[in-house]
Order: sequence, then structure tokens, then C-alpha cells
Amino acid sequence: MCQLLGMNCATPTDITFSFRGFSQRAGITSDHCDGFGIAFFEDKACRLFVDNQSAVESPIAELIRNYPIKSRNVIAHIRKATQGKINLENSHPFSRELWGRQWIFAHNGDLHDFSPELAGRFTPVGNTDSELAFCYLLEQLVKRFGYEEPSLDQIFDVLIEISPQIAEHGTFNFCLSNGQALFSYAITKLHWLVREYPFKPAQLIDLDVEVDFSEVTTADDRVAVITTEPLTQNEVWTAFKPGEMILFQHGKPIRHAMSEIARLERERLDPSLRRVTLADHY
Amino acid sequence: MCQLLGMNCATPTDITFSFRGFSQRAGITSDHCDGFGIAFFEDKACRLFVDNQSAVESPIAELIRNYPIKSRNVIAHIRKATQGKINLENSHPFSRELWGRQWIFAHNGDLHDFSPELAGRFTPVGNTDSELAFCYLLEQLVKRFGYEEPSLDQIFDVLIEISPQIAEHGTFNFCLSNGQALFSYAITKLHWLVREYPFKPAQLIDLDVEVDFSEVTTADDRVAVITTEPLTQNEVWTAFKPGEMILFQHGKPIRHAMSEIARLERERLDPSLRRVTLADHY
Repeated sequence: MCQLLGMNCATPTDITFSFRGFSQRAGITSDHCDGFGIAFFEDKACRLFVDNQSAVESPIAELIRNYPIKSRNVIAHIRKATQGKINLENSHPFSRELWGRQWIFAHNGDLHDFSPELAGRFTPVGNTDSELAFCYLLEQLVKRFGYEEPSLDQIFDVLIEISPQIAEHGTFNFCLSNGQALFSYAITKLHWLVREYPFKPAQLIDLDVEVDFSEVTTADDRVAVITTEPLTQNEVWTAFKPGEMILFQHGKPIRHAMSEIARLERERLDPSLRRVTLADHY
Repeated sequence: MCQLLGMNCATPTDITFSFRGFSQRAGITSDHCDGFGIAFFEDKACRLFVDNQSAVESPIAELIRNYPIKSRNVIAHIRKATQGKINLENSHPFSRELWGRQWIFAHNGDLHDFSPELAGRFTPVGNTDSELAFCYLLEQLVKRFGYEEPSLDQIFDVLIEISPQIAEHGTFNFCLSNGQALFSYAITKLHWLVREYPFKPAQLIDLDVEVDFSEVTTADDRVAVITTEPLTQNEVWTAFKPGEMILFQHGKPIRHAMSEIARLERERLDPSLRRVTLADHY
């Protein structure tokens, strides 16, 4: 399995504090040593750093801990390989261009017997279940909207419909961003919080580091952090409910939905759609 | 205008020597200060580092100069902006996935009145003529081959046909790689050399640094380096002829063609194709 870290902000913000704690889990406080990656959006484009070395040992991770790249949307991932070799092509996050924007995706979980046929518009470069799921999601978006870029709400509607279908194959927790907003979905484990005015000190769990955010922020700042396991010990983290999807924009959740409900509604309208329940996977 | 650096190798090789000299041109020996980028392939995947700081000042460029990432195909670019803002989305090299491989492209030159309509399969994220040309080239490849991956020779045949059409809009020197091989094309300026056994010392032009490659190589190594302006003062660099395309694989040129000849041949078969000659652009 792997761990995810996402950040969505009202103003461009650096992630060095959270990443310092998170990257400790790549060998020191946990064993997610099989590569890491982090993507920083700047408007529609993004910088993607990946390495098949652990986030503890990689010189690239060291750069990230020390070089404050400011961004409104960040997705990071530390890998503990379950499927696919430990090489660059299997390192999350994955990226693809769609509608003139980069899209970035990272997955925590493990899918089984998931082998949808893809039309070829998006093809996995590596051989992980995760990149296949990403390509499948994007293909579904293109099937619905063609080459006309839809709104965030329209994208959310498709994701909340498709994600539980993928989750029927296993654990499917993810963070996805197109630089405008950050979509996150959890079947088993994901937590989030929002830091906003009045800011307070925060103390990392994985490292003896504290930052008093009131000293380094302005009233305009607001940051949502999404992560597999809480990163700080003195802040309140909210766990995602199983099947919950949250859309973050401007540093806060702007839309929630429970995929279970959406799926049951579809099945009520068309009983032929009925499949195993999500509960089978717990 | 910008400068290009490409490397194609028989065995995974690091580019630190060449990049040290090349990156001096981003503010010290020349004024290509408006961002830089470098892509390193590992099989079908690649690491892409881009920054809108100069390659002299960027901490990311400093990492590249000191962290020997080994790769068979590398493309780097230092930018002196002529079109498009100095921001991340306009930083070369550009990347797209096609046929389950990453494709990387960097351009030196300036295109005018180049505004082909794209179908949407590839859409520029930024607003440079260069990324538009890249998207157009890939779209032409998909038009010819659909979602069946063609051979390198088939790709070469399409590139040598399409590239001079783009070059009718201005200067079009480029390096393009899909991780298997490196395609390079020059209308005005590009140089190349091959380093192979028996290796010799090489002395950078832009920095007082010499490396004796015979001490750091084996007989299996072979490296082709492609660059806008020669990087070393004691090696023989060959200039591309105007309209020449060279395909490099396993550290050496495996195919050459002159686009002029290909174009004249097409025009002979179908006079309606006749356009202004490339000579109009000199």
C-alpha cells in the first residue's frame, strides 16, 4: 500500500512543513520506501518530481524539503509496492494532459481483476493498477464530454459515478487535480483538515518539528490538507467516510458526496446495474 | 531564441558534464535566462524537471549538475523568450503520452502565422508556438497510425514529411524522443558528435572543466550529443545541414534524411502541394 498527501490552497503556498513529516514515513516512521513523487501545479501546468528511491534517501526529496515551491494544488505519494516493479514508470503521481491542462493522480490501495479495455486515448506507461484506473477515469470523462471542457461540478458528477465501480475491485483512495481544484475519494482511509485564520501552531507527528502558522501566514491564506494518516498531533483531522468524495477549491471543501448513495440510486432506477456491495470489501 | 541539448546513449549515461557547460549559457556565457528544463527517460517513462528560473540560479538545475541521473535519452532546453510568458506552462521540454510512452519535445526557433486547428487529442497547456508544433506533430502521427504504435522508421517518415511544412512558418530546430530513440531536425542550427571507444579527454567551452572520458567509460559506452552550439573545444562537431533530420539510437545516428529532397519529391508527384521554398527563410 501507499500513502497520499494532497494540498489545496486559496493562495500559492509551500508544502515543506507537511512534506517533511510525510516523507519520514518512507523509511523512518513507516516503510513506504519504494519510490516517491510529488506534483506542484502552477495554473494549468505542473512540475512533477518522481524518484524510485525513497523519499528519505532521494536527493530530489531533499530538494523538495528545502526548496519552497509555492502552489495552489499539490499531490504527493510515497510507495510501498504491491503491484508493478519499483521503477520510474510505476511511480505516482501520474500525469496526463486533457483539455489543455495537466491532470495529476495518485492512488492508495490495491485493485484486483481490474482490466478495463481502453480505447487508446490514454494508455498506461507502466503496469500498475493505479495508472490503469487513472487512464480509465480520464477516458470516461472524454466519453462524456468529448473535447469540450466541462465544469468542475460536471467532472465531480462523473467521478462520483465511476469511482465506486472501480472500488468494487479493491481499495481505491485517490487524489486527483487538474490545477483548478482537488478531487479526493476514499473507500478505506483518508483524512483532511483546513488551516485558516486565526492560524495556530502545528506539531508534526513523524518528526519533532513545530510551526506557528500565525507567524507565517496572512488572513487571506487558507489551506486544505488531505492525507492517508494525520500529519500533526495537535490539530483536528476529519476522516473521510467510506465512499465519500470531497472537492476542494480555494483551500476548503466545496462539495461532498457519498458514492454509495449515488450508486444505490442508479441501481434503484436500473436493477440490472446491481453488483456486489462495497461492504464486501471491508 | 533558445538552445537545445540532446543526448542519446548505448548504455544509461549521466549528462552532468554536458549540462554543466550548457547551463552556463543561462546567464554567464550567454543570456538564455528565461527558464530551463530537462527530461531524462528511463525506458518508456521520464523525469521532467522544469523551472522558470534560469539554469544558473535554479536550485533544480543545481541538483541536475550534481546528481548523476543515468539515462539513454535526455533532452534539455534553456529559454530566451520570444513568444509566450516566462512561466512554467511555457517551459520546454513539453511532454505527452502516446502509445503508452512519454514523448518529450524541445524547440529552438520562432514560428509565425502557425495556427493549425487541432482536433483535441493533444492541446497546448501554455501559449508557445513550440508546444503547438509538438501537439500538431503528435496529432499527425495519430492521424496516420491511429492507436497502433508504428516503428521508428514509420515515425521518421511522417516527421520528415511534416517538419518542413512547419518550418515554412519560421525557424524549426527540434529534439524529440519517445525513450526508444531521439529524432532531431534542424533548419538553421544544430550540431552533433558521437563519443565512443577509444574515448578521449573533452574540454568544455563555457567553463574551465575537462573530463577524460577514457577514465570513466567502458568499451560498451557510446554517446551521441546534439546541441545548438558545440559544447567542447577539442572535439569535432558536425553541423546539421539545413532541413536535415537525424535519428539517433544506441548512441549513434541510424538514419539521416534531407527534408528538402522529400518535399521536392512529393511536389513532383503532386504539383498542387508546391509552396514557398525553404530558401525563402534564410
